[in-house]
Amino acid sequence: LNQERLKEFEPVFYPRSIAVVGVSRKVKRGGTAFLEGFLKAGFKGKLYAVSPAGGEVLGLKIYPNLRSIPEPVDYALLSIPRSAILDTIDDCAAKGVKAAHLFTAGFSETGDEEARDLEREMVRRARMGGVRLIGPNCIGVYSPRNLMPYGPMEHLLREAGSVAFVSQSGGQGENILIEGMRRGLKVGKGVSFGNGADLDSPDFLEYLAVDPETEVIGAYLEGVKDGRRLFRALREAARAKPVVMWKGGRTGAGARTATSHTGSLAGSDIIWDTLLKQTGAAKAESFEELFDTLLAFQNLPRLNHSDIALIGGLFDGAGGWSVAASDTCVAQGLSVPPFSDETRRQLEAIIPPVGTILRNPIDTGGAFIRVPLSDMEIPRRLFEVIVAELDTNIVLLIEPVGMARGYIASMEVLHALNELVIDFHRRKPFVIVSPPGLAEAERMDVERRFADAGLPVYPTVERAAKAMANVARYWKFRDEIEESDEGTGAA
Amino acid sequence: LNQERLKEFEPVFYPRSIAVVGVSRKVKRGGTAFLEGFLKAGFKGKLYAVSPAGGEVLGLKIYPNLRSIPEPVDYALLSIPRSAILDTIDDCAAKGVKAAHLFTAGFSETGDEEARDLEREMVRRARMGGVRLIGPNCIGVYSPRNLMPYGPMEHLLREAGSVAFVSQSGGQGENILIEGMRRGLKVGKGVSFGNGADLDSPDFLEYLAVDPETEVIGAYLEGVKDGRRLFRALREAARAKPVVMWKGGRTGAGARTATSHTGSLAGSDIIWDTLLKQTGAAKAESFEELFDTLLAFQNLPRLNHSDIALIGGLFDGAGGWSVAASDTCVAQGLSVPPFSDETRRQLEAIIPPVGTILRNPIDTGGAFIRVPLSDMEIPRRLFEVIVAELDTNIVLLIEPVGMARGYIASMEVLHALNELVIDFHRRKPFVIVSPPGLAEAERMDVERRFADAGLPVYPTVERAAKAMANVARYWKFRDEIEESDEGTGAA
Repeated sequence: LNQERLKEFEPVFYPRSIAVVGVSRKVKRGGTAFLEGFLKAGFKGKLYAVSPAGGEVLGLKIYPNLRSIPEPVDYALLSIPRSAILDTIDDCAAKGVKAAHLFTAGFSETGDEEARDLEREMVRRARMGGVRLIGPNCIGVYSPRNLMPYGPMEHLLREAGSVAFVSQSGGQGENILIEGMRRGLKVGKGVSFGNGADLDSPDFLEYLAVDPETEVIGAYLEGVKDGRRLFRALREAARAKPVVMWKGGRTGAGARTATSHTGSLAGSDIIWDTLLKQTGAAKAESFEELFDTLLAFQNLPRLNHSDIALIGGLFDGAGGWSVAASDTCVAQGLSVPPFSDETRRQLEAIIPPVGTILRNPIDTGGAFIRVPLSDMEIPRRLFEVIVAELDTNIVLLIEPVGMARGYIASMEVLHALNELVIDFHRRKPFVIVSPPGLAEAERMDVERRFADAGLPVYPTVERAAKAMANVARYWKFRDEIEESDEGTGAA
Repeated sequence: LNQERLKEFEPVFYPRSIAVVGVSRKVKRGGTAFLEGFLKAGFKGKLYAVSPAGGEVLGLKIYPNLRSIPEPVDYALLSIPRSAILDTIDDCAAKGVKAAHLFTAGFSETGDEEARDLEREMVRRARMGGVRLIGPNCIGVYSPRNLMPYGPMEHLLREAGSVAFVSQSGGQGENILIEGMRRGLKVGKGVSFGNGADLDSPDFLEYLAVDPETEVIGAYLEGVKDGRRLFRALREAARAKPVVMWKGGRTGAGARTATSHTGSLAGSDIIWDTLLKQTGAAKAESFEELFDTLLAFQNLPRLNHSDIALIGGLFDGAGGWSVAASDTCVAQGLSVPPFSDETRRQLEAIIPPVGTILRNPIDTGGAFIRVPLSDMEIPRRLFEVIVAELDTNIVLLIEPVGMARGYIASMEVLHALNELVIDFHRRKPFVIVSPPGLAEAERMDVERRFADAGLPVYPTVERAAKAMANVARYWKFRDEIEESDEGTGAA
């Protein structure tokens, strides 16, 4: 079964040849922009341009229609007038195209009855002809291992990783890629599927659940046609790997907008909440929470509880964070347990207990102000004690670069401290909070360095805490189902 | 009564002379750093340096003690060993010092019984001698109109505005100033009061409630000694002007940390919630919400309802925000009502209804892609219709610069569009959401321009929505109490 699914989606994410239908020698938008994107990205398979106008575009011959292409076509990208859609779908079927992506909009999302009928007829013909449809009204597939950019946006193509996204909105998929470039989320597969007339969220989830290249799944949905199928697909996926879902159109205003956006009937918020709880998928309530949680899943190992160690201030002036950060973490469902007496004794041997907080959170009260570069011994000993604390399994470090600048000897010292953190991250995962401040260029350097080293960085404690709590909850769910599976003798 | 309070706090925020007790010719930290801060900030009153060591520091003669200063001293900054504190307070009293700020730590926050007794005795002597104490264990006063920097941080001194803060934590006060520099929050007065042994949060709130220079008050508290007094002070302040309060130490872990930080007994979260609800003060649950709400109060007029217009996408690729943004706004308690038929007809005359959303939210579906600089007519007409919509009183505009860059003709076009927005902001307030993206330097320029023009900018829709909702709720409370005051014949 799994092999069948993988095979079914091979033409979607790994087509060997792509035909772009609806190019133009004059207009750079639409199909032409997509074609240019494939070329610039260096797509390794065959590329064909199609338009009744004929001629040549971007160095490629333009075929008058799909049937006139001499070789096989796995994947067709359709950017054509609605009036041509049925004939073109028939062409796809005749040509043996396996997957057709419809960039074209103006179907069920318009609310127009005729447009809805056209969408239905198109799906009927595609299914009869063995063509799977992506869309209509969407950006389509992102498959960096196959050098397929996200729509015409080849500037967003990056090294592939283990995260996959399924997004009804093209813009939200784009947001994930953009934010990923800044913060080190490595996407290996993505799809924006718009109206989801044929291939819908459950299809993509079922595939990604068994896809060996995917370890974490993020989903943005505005609605669904078959709730039971989505439920089953989500449950199956969440039992296999972390799934984070953000549901748009949860409120009256949002639902009204979702209908105009992707023709979705949004469904009630309560139903969605229940759905997610029962499937074990993590729930995000905003783009930020979706992204932040994906980043945490990508960068953190499997957690066996939600106790964290919290370093509120390495530098003077950062201590005010400790109280607030404890509150925020606990409010989100994490635990910040007091350190053992042994740990506290060890910490007090390194840093004096006056003007500091050493109970968890830790606030060094400025112990690292003007530390010389040569003397990383005190911070090293401090981190040594903290990572050895058995009762915690993540270290949350608040590092306000914009403030630290005024306090520490130099940016070199900060960088040296950060390299220490990166070293210790191998023994116990660190999560970094780096709030914007007075030194944004420097802060972005720091963020980049941490991201490259696989440490998740968040702009606020709240966002870090939400992400960590989602991860901890998910692994607790997995512990529970695995225990119960063992109990019943299931594998 | 009001005049008395204003007079009482004049030596705190407008001292004409300051003595820094505990300077050193060798060590640049502590009192010397404060003194240098006053000098660099250009404090216009008289400055005196005090230390038993004598000599000279930073070009000033060092007096051996307060009594030996020949002229009057309004304000004394004490950075001295704990052992010298009682004698120095006696000196303050003898010298006629009106306000003493104790930077010195090591009192009730240590949990030590002896240190707590010392704090109590110090307060007793100060009160007998007519000296008001700020602290101990705090950064103290920020009073930019009097060129008094926040502690030694003269680099944070900026043009004074109408916002005041009261913070038990020095670091959180610093965070407000730093974030304020970036985002255009203009602080006119601030105080970090640490343990609040004498002057406590109710004192500062009572003062700021009647201070004509203060229009908005932000408070960060970790605990309070006299709950009834705080309740009365908050109620009085919130009846006079917006008050936003963030309470640290709400959870077990936070409360434990608060005790180590400022010796506070944090009190139960439920009591605090009730307190805030009854007083009408807005409640913040994080630093970000505190700051974001202060910024909204500073930049938005009095609101008479919570209906907003939402522009989800001026540029292509930004449309995915519309659904999510509607949800987020509604979830936070705002309303995004559908536009009137008349408004929609007018919008449809400007932008085609295909591929766009014109119901509220508005998604232009890329209508402004490649608009030439010379043609700001379409956006102008669009904004014209939106600000004329009677049912909404704020326009929330999502402007993803990092994404827009790929879509619009040039940054000049974006800047021209933004200048239009700034123009229309005079007729109906705009709130901007500018998520981080691929062009951070450009985005910061845009943010700066909006901030200078008095438009509040937020990094996420959620944060903008929380801030707007807090503002709307507050003015609803004011409407209600003013109606009820009218009903009972009160002024």
